Amino acid sequence: MEVPIRIIGIDPGLRRTGWGIVETLGNSLRFVASGTVTSDAKADLASRLCQLHEGLSAVIHGHRPDEAAVEQTFVNKDAVATLKLGQARGIALLVPALAGLPVAEYAPNAVKKAVIGVGHGEKKQIHMMVKVLMPKAHFETDDAADALAIAICHTHHRQSATARAALAVR
Amino acid sequence: MEVPIRIIGIDPGLRRTGWGIVETLGNSLRFVASGTVTSDAKADLASRLCQLHEGLSAVIHGHRPDEAAVEQTFVNKDAVATLKLGQARGIALLVPALAGLPVAEYAPNAVKKAVIGVGHGEKKQIHMMVKVLMPKAHFETDDAADALAIAICHTHHRQSATARAALAVR
Repeated sequence: MEVPIRIIGIDPGLRRTGWGIVETLGNSLRFVASGTVTSDAKADLASRLCQLHEGLSAVIHGHRPDEAAVEQTFVNKDAVATLKLGQARGIALLVPALAGLPVAEYAPNAVKKAVIGVGHGEKKQIHMMVKVLMPKAHFETDDAADALAIAICHTHHRQSATARAALAVR
Repeated sequence: MEVPIRIIGIDPGLRRTGWGIVETLGNSLRFVASGTVTSDAKADLASRLCQLHEGLSAVIHGHRPDEAAVEQTFVNKDAVATLKLGQARGIALLVPALAGLPVAEYAPNAVKKAVIGVGHGEKKQIHMMVKVLMPKAHFETDDAADALAIAICHTHHRQSATARAALAVR
């Protein structure tokens, strides 16, 4: 019997890191949970990274996903913003890897393509499609919705990888 | 009796993260150890961050520093390089904070000013001054030497902070 695979998608940010968990079995997709891990903007940077680490660790410990997918974002505004995002992203990649999960990375346009069919589109369209693909999904923040989209993107890519592997075995 | 304070300086980088540990007691400065934690360039990003996490955790566990100082570097070359550095820097800040150490951050020119007296200067000058200030210091890489300079910078700043606190108490 095939068992469902549980995937956590993570949309990293220093202030707010969104997470979303889905289960996939064959072509079916099921919403499990979503949320946002925040850090205290008044705390020093190292403490904020600890807060993200603690929050994400609790989510992974509580929901026991099998695989992780993290958005590969670039901030082109300025070096300070990019460095800040990089630091949060380091934690978003580290925590699932420390828990032994394989961690995939997807560029924003790959996420858009997986969810709305094209590599560009409004945030609103993505959130609407997340609801179409998983009617029971609920999310309180944009970051949580984005994280669910990243998780959905990973289910598509791992399915095609599995299909390729199956063909190779024949 | 005053007890020496042990400080770890960290110069973060995805490929190589330098670390250096010094002890300070009043105005005296003593070299403890230095080294470099590396990550495998062929591994995926999440695994590389795990390798840095593991290496730095082992150093902190082995040498039990009381405080940490991390260089505040900006890479203005391009967003990709800055994001990469940010990810490594996230780990360099996280690991000592998770161990309960206060983590200070210093800009490169503050480190130069503390070690060579002015806010600009060649890498070579910094390394030479590290040797002048701590004749027993040894370092095998530039990153380890830079990390020792960051630790020295922190001893200066914490001394003036302590002096200010003592004046305020009077």
